[in-house]
Amino acid sequence: MSTITRMLQTHPVGGDTSEALRACIQACAECAATCTSCADACLAEDMVAELRRCIRTNLDCADVCAVTGAVLSRLTEPSAEVQRAVLQACAAACRACAQECEKHADMHEHCRVCADACRRCEQACEELLATL
Amino acid sequence: MSTITRMLQTHPVGGDTSEALRACIQACAECAATCTSCADACLAEDMVAELRRCIRTNLDCADVCAVTGAVLSRLTEPSAEVQRAVLQACAAACRACAQECEKHADMHEHCRVCADACRRCEQACEELLATL
Amino acid sequence: MSTITRMLQTHPVGGDTSEALRACIQACAECAATCTSCADACLAEDMVAELRRCIRTNLDCADVCAVTGAVLSRLTEPSAEVQRAVLQACAAACRACAQECEKHADMHEHCRVCADACRRCEQACEELLATL
Amino acid sequence: MSTITRMLQTHPVGGDTSEALRACIQACAECAATCTSCADACLAEDMVAELRRCIRTNLDCADVCAVTGAVLSRLTEPSAEVQRAVLQACAAACRACAQECEKHADMHEHCRVCADACRRCEQACEELLATL
Repeated sequence: MSTITRMLQTHPVGGDTSEALRACIQACAECAATCTSCADACLAEDMVAELRRCIRTNLDCADVCAVTGAVLSRLTEPSAEVQRAVLQACAAACRACAQECEKHADMHEHCRVCADACRRCEQACEELLATL
Repeated sequence: MSTITRMLQTHPVGGDTSEALRACIQACAECAATCTSCADACLAEDMVAELRRCIRTNLDCADVCAVTGAVLSRLTEPSAEVQRAVLQACAAACRACAQECEKHADMHEHCRVCADACRRCEQACEELLATL
Repeated sequence: MSTITRMLQTHPVGGDTSEALRACIQACAECAATCTSCADACLAEDMVAELRRCIRTNLDCADVCAVTGAVLSRLTEPSAEVQRAVLQACAAACRACAQECEKHADMHEHCRVCADACRRCEQACEELLATL
Repeated sequence: MSTITRMLQTHPVGGDTSEALRACIQACAECAATCTSCADACLAEDMVAELRRCIRTNLDCADVCAVTGAVLSRLTEPSAEVQRAVLQACAAACRACAQECEKHADMHEHCRVCADACRRCEQACEELLATL
């Protein structure tokens, strides 16, 4: 999604946007879309009754990642305290979802793809947190 | 919004839902709607250029409150770690938005109403956090 | 949620807000919260495999109602064309969700409460559409 | 975002997902992120008072695109009626936002990038609608 990079570059106060911020916004968008899809894929599985926790965790992670991406992409008058708290929530949601999806990764390829997206987003949040 | 109370009561695992949880879900819904409206009211003010930080903080707070309400209203297989991190993010977003709206509360009644909703939601998050 | 009424009243351009608009914003907020909760309640039921369509329809309806409430509560420079299209999408999502929840209303009280909220929101959308 | 393509391919009922659907999900994600960023960029501009309509339209378009992407990426038990209504709302929101951003495209590069994303998403919605 190079469009986001171009948007940040053309933003009036976006001149000094860090690579860690851009990477995190992109990881959040990807993880939100992946978790929305994984919740739905789990819902369609024959063994849906055993995937309740996975579906629930996917829904939480999709919601939290979408909001984190939105908060981070707002460059006007940011609050470092809010950014940090949101990033910590996002890392927690990604970790919980990755842990759950990893349990089903051998059986369901969508859970493997989703676990990878969650781990990438968790790491992107941690790396951005380290710079704030 | 007594509908939410009825939904939690009729949920298969909702029997022991705490009053703190119900109050927080309701406060999040109210704060999300209020902040969405306050961002738009600020945008319509003549002095919009001086309300940039208020609009931005309102948008963040609306997003974070909406997601917090959704995460909390999911009773199936919850993760206390995710709940805590999301509640801390919500309290931080509400505090930042309340502080900003309070600066304009004398001049803009919508900022006063919004600051009150943010403080109520911040407190509801803190009270629920104290029980987790 | 009388807070929303107060917000609309104190909005710079909110003076002539119609009762149909206020009622629709409130119905959207209530329906979004109810559908989020019903999706989760269905997920916790023993017969979750038979509630796939209900869960999916609940998730769609929750998403569409939340966005419709946000679009409607923005009074600054509205587009009647966008409002109408969003209201039609919301009425369609509410109708689909009500039809599905009504099938399970005898067995699951949360589906009965949710079907009622969806029908109220569908009607509120239709009534507002009739004024635009 | 090839991750979404992989998610749809590994979905239990995703085998016959059309290219038009995949393209539309991706266009919605890109447009949502772009409009969120453009609203914030406009807010930071000196001439923010002249960009009120652009900010408002951006916020609507971001919300509607995000929900449209979520509805479309759910493949389990879809409702063609809901899909069509949501796609029409998304096309309307994208058209309105593109029209507004195009007015400022010569002055603000972020509005030019955003108008392009809106036009691409509008077209992706129309193309998918033609197949439903």
